[in-house]
Amino acid sequence: MARGQACTALTGTLAGAYERIRARTVALAKPLSAEDMQVQSMPEASPTKWHLAHTTWFFQTFVLDRFAPGVAPFASEWSALFNSYYESVGPRHPRAARGVISRPGADEVISCRHAVDDAVLSLLSTASARLEELAGVVVLGLEHEQQHQELLLTDIQHALSLNPTEPAYRAPAPRPLRRAPPLRFVEQPGGLVEIGHPDSGFAFDNERPRHRVYLEPFAVGSRSVTCGEYAAFIEDGGYRRPELWLSDGWAEQKEHDRAAPLYWAKRGGGWHTFTAEGMCPVDPDVPVSSVSFYEADAYARWAGARLPTEAEWECVAAGVTVEGNLLDDDVAACTLSPRAATGERLSQLFGDVWEWTASAYLPYPGFRPLDGALGEYNGKFMSGQMVLRGGSCFTPRDHVRASYRNFFPPSARWQMSGIRLAMSERR
Amino acid sequence: MARGQACTALTGTLAGAYERIRARTVALAKPLSAEDMQVQSMPEASPTKWHLAHTTWFFQTFVLDRFAPGVAPFASEWSALFNSYYESVGPRHPRAARGVISRPGADEVISCRHAVDDAVLSLLSTASARLEELAGVVVLGLEHEQQHQELLLTDIQHALSLNPTEPAYRAPAPRPLRRAPPLRFVEQPGGLVEIGHPDSGFAFDNERPRHRVYLEPFAVGSRSVTCGEYAAFIEDGGYRRPELWLSDGWAEQKEHDRAAPLYWAKRGGGWHTFTAEGMCPVDPDVPVSSVSFYEADAYARWAGARLPTEAEWECVAAGVTVEGNLLDDDVAACTLSPRAATGERLSQLFGDVWEWTASAYLPYPGFRPLDGALGEYNGKFMSGQMVLRGGSCFTPRDHVRASYRNFFPPSARWQMSGIRLAMSERR
Amino acid sequence: MARGQACTALTGTLAGAYERIRARTVALAKPLSAEDMQVQSMPEASPTKWHLAHTTWFFQTFVLDRFAPGVAPFASEWSALFNSYYESVGPRHPRAARGVISRPGADEVISCRHAVDDAVLSLLSTASARLEELAGVVVLGLEHEQQHQELLLTDIQHALSLNPTEPAYRAPAPRPLRRAPPLRFVEQPGGLVEIGHPDSGFAFDNERPRHRVYLEPFAVGSRSVTCGEYAAFIEDGGYRRPELWLSDGWAEQKEHDRAAPLYWAKRGGGWHTFTAEGMCPVDPDVPVSSVSFYEADAYARWAGARLPTEAEWECVAAGVTVEGNLLDDDVAACTLSPRAATGERLSQLFGDVWEWTASAYLPYPGFRPLDGALGEYNGKFMSGQMVLRGGSCFTPRDHVRASYRNFFPPSARWQMSGIRLAMSERR
Amino acid sequence: MARGQACTALTGTLAGAYERIRARTVALAKPLSAEDMQVQSMPEASPTKWHLAHTTWFFQTFVLDRFAPGVAPFASEWSALFNSYYESVGPRHPRAARGVISRPGADEVISCRHAVDDAVLSLLSTASARLEELAGVVVLGLEHEQQHQELLLTDIQHALSLNPTEPAYRAPAPRPLRRAPPLRFVEQPGGLVEIGHPDSGFAFDNERPRHRVYLEPFAVGSRSVTCGEYAAFIEDGGYRRPELWLSDGWAEQKEHDRAAPLYWAKRGGGWHTFTAEGMCPVDPDVPVSSVSFYEADAYARWAGARLPTEAEWECVAAGVTVEGNLLDDDVAACTLSPRAATGERLSQLFGDVWEWTASAYLPYPGFRPLDGALGEYNGKFMSGQMVLRGGSCFTPRDHVRASYRNFFPPSARWQMSGIRLAMSERR
Repeated sequence: MARGQACTALTGTLAGAYERIRARTVALAKPLSAEDMQVQSMPEASPTKWHLAHTTWFFQTFVLDRFAPGVAPFASEWSALFNSYYESVGPRHPRAARGVISRPGADEVISCRHAVDDAVLSLLSTASARLEELAGVVVLGLEHEQQHQELLLTDIQHALSLNPTEPAYRAPAPRPLRRAPPLRFVEQPGGLVEIGHPDSGFAFDNERPRHRVYLEPFAVGSRSVTCGEYAAFIEDGGYRRPELWLSDGWAEQKEHDRAAPLYWAKRGGGWHTFTAEGMCPVDPDVPVSSVSFYEADAYARWAGARLPTEAEWECVAAGVTVEGNLLDDDVAACTLSPRAATGERLSQLFGDVWEWTASAYLPYPGFRPLDGALGEYNGKFMSGQMVLRGGSCFTPRDHVRASYRNFFPPSARWQMSGIRLAMSERR
Repeated sequence: MARGQACTALTGTLAGAYERIRARTVALAKPLSAEDMQVQSMPEASPTKWHLAHTTWFFQTFVLDRFAPGVAPFASEWSALFNSYYESVGPRHPRAARGVISRPGADEVISCRHAVDDAVLSLLSTASARLEELAGVVVLGLEHEQQHQELLLTDIQHALSLNPTEPAYRAPAPRPLRRAPPLRFVEQPGGLVEIGHPDSGFAFDNERPRHRVYLEPFAVGSRSVTCGEYAAFIEDGGYRRPELWLSDGWAEQKEHDRAAPLYWAKRGGGWHTFTAEGMCPVDPDVPVSSVSFYEADAYARWAGARLPTEAEWECVAAGVTVEGNLLDDDVAACTLSPRAATGERLSQLFGDVWEWTASAYLPYPGFRPLDGALGEYNGKFMSGQMVLRGGSCFTPRDHVRASYRNFFPPSARWQMSGIRLAMSERR
Repeated sequence: MARGQACTALTGTLAGAYERIRARTVALAKPLSAEDMQVQSMPEASPTKWHLAHTTWFFQTFVLDRFAPGVAPFASEWSALFNSYYESVGPRHPRAARGVISRPGADEVISCRHAVDDAVLSLLSTASARLEELAGVVVLGLEHEQQHQELLLTDIQHALSLNPTEPAYRAPAPRPLRRAPPLRFVEQPGGLVEIGHPDSGFAFDNERPRHRVYLEPFAVGSRSVTCGEYAAFIEDGGYRRPELWLSDGWAEQKEHDRAAPLYWAKRGGGWHTFTAEGMCPVDPDVPVSSVSFYEADAYARWAGARLPTEAEWECVAAGVTVEGNLLDDDVAACTLSPRAATGERLSQLFGDVWEWTASAYLPYPGFRPLDGALGEYNGKFMSGQMVLRGGSCFTPRDHVRASYRNFFPPSARWQMSGIRLAMSERR
Repeated sequence: MARGQACTALTGTLAGAYERIRARTVALAKPLSAEDMQVQSMPEASPTKWHLAHTTWFFQTFVLDRFAPGVAPFASEWSALFNSYYESVGPRHPRAARGVISRPGADEVISCRHAVDDAVLSLLSTASARLEELAGVVVLGLEHEQQHQELLLTDIQHALSLNPTEPAYRAPAPRPLRRAPPLRFVEQPGGLVEIGHPDSGFAFDNERPRHRVYLEPFAVGSRSVTCGEYAAFIEDGGYRRPELWLSDGWAEQKEHDRAAPLYWAKRGGGWHTFTAEGMCPVDPDVPVSSVSFYEADAYARWAGARLPTEAEWECVAAGVTVEGNLLDDDVAACTLSPRAATGERLSQLFGDVWEWTASAYLPYPGFRPLDGALGEYNGKFMSGQMVLRGGSCFTPRDHVRASYRNFFPPSARWQMSGIRLAMSERR
């Protein structure tokens, strides 16, 4: 096949992916009113409208400005409003004040999305030079878009949760009742293993380079910790026993008077939790979610175990197919679902909840950030955060992989963040 | 005239006022999008939508719940959302978190307004018992509504001002260029005077009882201080000279690095200011606005004068007709306008800007708050605030009067707050 | 008598007062260790050593530097350390960081006091020109010294109270058990009265000028509110009833979870309080102390009364001799003492506790601060504070008078601050 | 040799070490006044007196209470005052309020030290049972004591630095002028190495277990980064270039307006720095100190390098003798000293400054904290901190070793913390 044809094929596929992924972001915002899309519930979260605009700004800034100079459907005076954190691109509106930007409105932002999409698609269909470079940035933009799809959902869930009328993002979907299988520990030999993205396919810079790591033998829990198990920890006084907690976690929990995962509340004697479907009774068989690293770590200590390191996690997940309760195209699966009691050795590595690891988010040996402004994408956050692995029910299936490193501060609780246990020795 | 007829007349007039005043609030929100109406720019300010809903909650709670039990177009689950500060009425959503309440949306809130309006008007046309009591509460509700009309405008102006794209609330209106007349000091004899609301017409509880106050002779500035005069204070190093400032004001100004009124910014060498019409060059002949009590006080000291006490102010304003640049029905006058160089002894007492006084907001001798929950309306705020007098370009003309006491913390700057000078002795 | 002789007499008397008052400050610090004198327990309080040094700095700066240039026993490099708030005198060490200044040590500071004292006394005995001006500043310095004597005691009491071992400032003194007489309300005619310092004797600038005030008839409580009465307010749920509180007071109390005066704690079922003599059972017959303005105001509302204005207070106290439980020379009376059930119409106006008034601390009509840096002494604090009257058991008897205006923020609780009731009408 | 004799020998040696190490702490406090010893300059630092008392509390609590019940020279009511962070031992005085504890005074604390020392020495000379367990805890107590010796010095340096009179901890000692040799990068093969404490000698629990780590080839700087080199980074705009900084570091630096290491200030055009000997000109040839992890990381990026991981550091240091500019017995070496231009491949690994590593402080694989309350010593701090290696001029020589893990939050700057560079590939 001639190079020209290969390129056409590449950009054809890419254009398809572009249309599909960009459209899903708008679809995710569909159930929301203009007011919903405006709300910023805390400095760490962003308005839906901001996500819609920022992802579009990304394509304007890193694709159109570079590869189609002068084509600027995204107004330049909006640039500072929707630049997230790229210091080298120009000034930025303060993160905590995103919720005050009422103009442009959601309609204007969505129109602008379409205009930028037309421009990018037109570029993809006509570009002849620097095609690989262009494709690389477009792919990065789409992976970026998918990250914001998840954030859009966790952020709006947080915003709605603060409304005492407990509005739901969507109507409840029927879900089969299933029991979680008993938790077992699956032994792993460890040894000198390789982690990091293994091939030339897309990966973020922080997943590279692939490198060797020596692991002592360990065992890993066969599934995520369930709400029922976590409730037993609460019942056993887990939040009142300092010996179970890291010092920072204990201090934070005392300061904020915490006694359960973020969205949990007692109603009529039983635990309920706020979800995309509104307030529901806690299902003891689904994975526990919305816990901080500190809570995950304390739970593990209480359970006589520990959290896995990210190298252990990746070593275990490396051969496993990416399947599970992830965000699929019809936006059906954005709450937790109990898994069947299968005979699988290991389940739920992907989907349902991101799993906190015992690893701080740090550069891999030989890490090199991307060149230019895109180098700010990941590297500069390698301080004060912990790694999570595996994706959640809010993660698009084709976005996650075994080497994927998600990261949040140890106190963060508004993500779909849960717990998988590990142990250094056999029980 | 029989009592029945008098009542009908009363409620007829009242119904007219009700319709007119309630409609104006909605009209003021007309230029705003759903997103604009959602924004809360700081804890002290509220979203437009909240103003629309809270004023309606007021009529539900204090009129319908009392005089038409069971008639509840205002959903009870919204009650906590839109209760401002009435501890005795029930729980309240935290003030600083009003901006996260995306549902009900503006459309629903406005529908609900109409339903409550229908119910109140129906009540007014049919009520036969407790008519005076009903009329009293409805009048209070309308005065309350008018206060929120002004707050709606100052709050949205603040919200829009934080948007780097500098959106305007409305298109600029042509305004004649006028020169401010020279400032003179008009002498007043003082002596034993009476202040407080003089008759049985409507007044807030904090304006009563009328009582005697002894005033030493004083002089009062013939008009408000202008932007040009204030710019000279800045130019003269006013913000860098601690001897001009109260200690609290100096500390606050240093902490926040202040050097001009709230909305002022230097553009190309000249002062500009953010207004309802967007960013405009400062007109040196209009009254200075958006200054704190501390700034007003420092300016007065710099000018070799002082601020008037509220008793002095009221004594001067008592005989003056309420006219000036106030908010009229077509929403035309909500920016400052320069006054003609008239031969008036005293101008601008009413309208343009509220004038900071040297008086702390405290109870008058013999003050009695209203009974029940409405007693929380004014009395409990009599601590830590300063009195302002006279109304602004955002104040409805039929809302203000000589005895009217507005009050804000000394650091507040987002109101249309300006300066009138006074002196204890002749110059 | 020739002018020369008059001057000698004046400075002779003044020198005596100087020696006596300056010595008492050192005597008050006598029971304290070097460590005690170093502690700053909160930004609002100062170390004992700082009080010893600052009062000396005052004489260096305002007396020696002016009247004996070149005589500088107080090292110039210490000047910034011990300047309290005089912006026009030069730079200042931050108030909240006074506790980190370990050098100079207490010994050096006291040596320096003696050297400055020698220099001032020598100046007093030899000065011939500007004698009245000199005497004026020395008198101001001594009044200033006496203010710091009280602060030294309230500040060290606060510091010791934070030590879980509950150390005492001094050994308990035997005190007769007495019963408080029943509280009566004494009617006052009001009318056009004069307040402010009446003659040419020493007074702070904030007590002047004397001026007319019109008072409606009122009644004033015959004595201070007692601990027993205040305990009944607590018992009656006073701290849990928002309708009794100013909005700011309610917010502050909720935030800090307050339920009793500052130093009170329940021990074995009964109230105890921390005093200069350590932790003691609360005596129900002594005046309640260490309450904020908010608490005083809430108590008054609960009791169906209100606080007096400062004009009412002064009008009542004008003819009363300054006597009561004040700080006398042998440092014996620095705790509260129950007063005998005398037949007095009004008791405890002076001594025991400062009484919160309903008046904000504002300038009197025609107020003029002192010239130069000393103008910063009082005037610049006329914002955000409330007036207290009457002196406490920590106040030197010859320091207080009917026109004396003490002032603190409404939330302050570490002073000997108590409650006297008033009413606008007869009961 | 019989077991009894071995024990006697062990306890004899231990008693000698005990006397020597305990005496040194007191000797380090010798130059300080009672006031100096009282000061707490920030929540993270402690008063000298607190260090003297806390280390003594440690021996009372973990040695005497366990092995000599009833022997309690350390008053039980002081226990809460001087418990640092052991939740399981009982209540604790808040860390940030250590500076308010004026009683007991320094004299009493030192007397108490002697009494506890007598009791411990007597126990050591008479104990027959549980001797190994006793010796283990005493050794831990002495290592703990040595950690507090360093903290005592860094804390008092910080406290004195806040005094505008710039008092010195001690008189300047003459120091030879030496030039730093050129910085070279020394290549290391990496591979599968072992780190962690290698034998049964004393080590903290966090240094164990020894375990395998795979290292890619790397190179390490031949010496610490010097003040001269760091000044060049400043000169080159290092503090104004966001691309050099981690996001958290950039935010912190902007917030606090940082532009140089903690103690540096420009004087007359040149950099000076506050040291134990007071304010001195910066010597360009001594190691830079008092930088945060963020500053170290930014410097490394500017220099085209990175920080070493702790495994790399330990791998390099494993075979190196512990010598350098450390705290020796005559308390002479507690400032930085320039090293001679020797022919050493690698110098300054130990002493002068702790070196920030790129490693977060996390548990080693298989980490087990000590049993009981002493398990709180290290493990619960394994969150939010970075590892430093190598010891400083304030570290006792017999306290540090290649496997020693010091840890501080990335923003901490008041330790003797400096920079060693590393690189992943050859230059």
